[in-house]
Amino acid sequence: MECVLNPGVFTFRDKIWLLLRVAERPVQEEGFISFPVFNHRHETEIIKLRKDDPELDLSDARVISYRGRGYLTTMSHLCLMCSDNGRNFYEPEDFDTRIFANGLLESFGIEDCRVSRLDDEYLLTYTQVSRYGVGVGLIRTRNWKEYDREGMIFPPHNKDCCIFEQKVNGKYIALHRPSGIDLGGNFIWIAESPDLIHWGNHRCVMTTRESSWDSVRVGAGAAPIWTDRGWLEIYHGADANHVYHLGAVLLDLEDPSRVIARSEQPILSPDMDYEKTGFFGNVVFSNGQVIEGDKITLYYGAADEVICGATLSIKEILRSLEPQILMHSNHKTSL
Amino acid sequence: MECVLNPGVFTFRDKIWLLLRVAERPVQEEGFISFPVFNHRHETEIIKLRKDDPELDLSDARVISYRGRGYLTTMSHLCLMCSDNGRNFYEPEDFDTRIFANGLLESFGIEDCRVSRLDDEYLLTYTQVSRYGVGVGLIRTRNWKEYDREGMIFPPHNKDCCIFEQKVNGKYIALHRPSGIDLGGNFIWIAESPDLIHWGNHRCVMTTRESSWDSVRVGAGAAPIWTDRGWLEIYHGADANHVYHLGAVLLDLEDPSRVIARSEQPILSPDMDYEKTGFFGNVVFSNGQVIEGDKITLYYGAADEVICGATLSIKEILRSLEPQILMHSNHKTSL
Repeated sequence: MECVLNPGVFTFRDKIWLLLRVAERPVQEEGFISFPVFNHRHETEIIKLRKDDPELDLSDARVISYRGRGYLTTMSHLCLMCSDNGRNFYEPEDFDTRIFANGLLESFGIEDCRVSRLDDEYLLTYTQVSRYGVGVGLIRTRNWKEYDREGMIFPPHNKDCCIFEQKVNGKYIALHRPSGIDLGGNFIWIAESPDLIHWGNHRCVMTTRESSWDSVRVGAGAAPIWTDRGWLEIYHGADANHVYHLGAVLLDLEDPSRVIARSEQPILSPDMDYEKTGFFGNVVFSNGQVIEGDKITLYYGAADEVICGATLSIKEILRSLEPQILMHSNHKTSL
Repeated sequence: MECVLNPGVFTFRDKIWLLLRVAERPVQEEGFISFPVFNHRHETEIIKLRKDDPELDLSDARVISYRGRGYLTTMSHLCLMCSDNGRNFYEPEDFDTRIFANGLLESFGIEDCRVSRLDDEYLLTYTQVSRYGVGVGLIRTRNWKEYDREGMIFPPHNKDCCIFEQKVNGKYIALHRPSGIDLGGNFIWIAESPDLIHWGNHRCVMTTRESSWDSVRVGAGAAPIWTDRGWLEIYHGADANHVYHLGAVLLDLEDPSRVIARSEQPILSPDMDYEKTGFFGNVVFSNGQVIEGDKITLYYGAADEVICGATLSIKEILRSLEPQILMHSNHKTSL
């Protein structure tokens, strides 16, 4: 079984590229569940358990809980594909198109890569999953042939990290999504760095909103888009029913830890059959886009199983945020 | 009501100093629970709830869960005390002895400060608690009068951070304790930094051990002690019954992410009445110590309510780890 989902997106050599997540799991046998892990010898090993084992919890399609330990039902790696028109993609022959998990901190796989471009370098921020927890790894490349692995930049529990495509006030900036226990929640945070590898000055940018489409979790998508009104970020939010929508948030250009405006209603919700039904239904999730002038071509995973495309207008999104933008600037003036 | 607990410890001007945690809560009224929070106007506000409110969960003495949100039952600040003999402590007159919470990320208080000395600077790593989550803050001082607040260095959920008192391979090193959700756990991790403010290259140093005294959580105490056998760290471990013990771990001098040996049995367990009974019973927890030659004077919190002292011998602790140290060095030779 194989799903493709949640691609990072970038342009390189006049083509549009996807770095998509391939989630694999072994052919399942009646009455059993089996799933892959990397073992200490760096080999893939299949673990097989009886489904009626009372110590097994299979209530979430994505996660297995067994004897107090967590596992994933699938193992993911990343796969490069490219396209001349942004619609028809193929695996290019002169590239090694697969990036696999590497090391103990990735023994359950690597997922949901964002690709930011800063000068001539591409920055891949992705989820590292292992029995030690879930954190954010960084890989750097200039040519998509040689890769520098910089290790884990945000420790557990963390994911949904994107790096801004320019420095702000002389520092590299990233959005990330740590999770709280007892206190806090699944909120979007910001951090800064002198060198992309070491991060500090963590601050919370936005929390979930009660009784809203983003009441239980929020997480950043691709790198924010510079506009003259602020940094425009398309983010995902989920509610208590695990329905994932996409919305927009506008961050202050000079101090991106400050929210100027935020979508009251989602800009994209699971609506089509392929978004509502699949490996994990009722999900639209994006971590990749291409910007041409006013047009955002958004690539998004639907139902954690397939990849779709949508086009959006930056001006239209800003127009939907206009009342809040005005309120914010009036508020600023009056202070 | 007021508890004093979990002091950071350091020497300064030929005296021994404690930076202790003072946990306060309002006088409680029959049938109600009340607790303090800092509000957006930076004032302390008392929240009062009926104990029979069905949306209130008071099963943990330390944490309140109300309408899906977490609060603390107490609010903590830090208090400086000093001593000539390490036994009788007083608040020195020519110092401002209180360090209070500051800013939105500390609105539920600051806790459990470790104090490391690096050259002539003291590094205070402490827990920042707020509705945004629980993370690690850094304050730097040279004179205990002027303080530089460097913000949050490890984002939620994180605590139990100590910085090594010398660089290793040209980098600053810290132990910290992120927590996992679904995957991972309450494990000790290591990170490195070029400047103390920005941290990266996170790796897991040690996990909890099934069926052991440290089966549910482990966390670092004060800065590790340099010995010729390795970095000796006194850490706390807790089991499923929330009993907190202290044990030792020895880390490789050149690569402190590698464990050489680790206590099979605790070196200190709750045994005395004042350790077994109190605000949160059956806890011994240390984040501060003084080293003189072979002698460790360990200051520890008991039952989350009072502060105790104990003396330990470095040689004796190393002797208890000897079988593992030998096994490790044989293993190294044979590779």
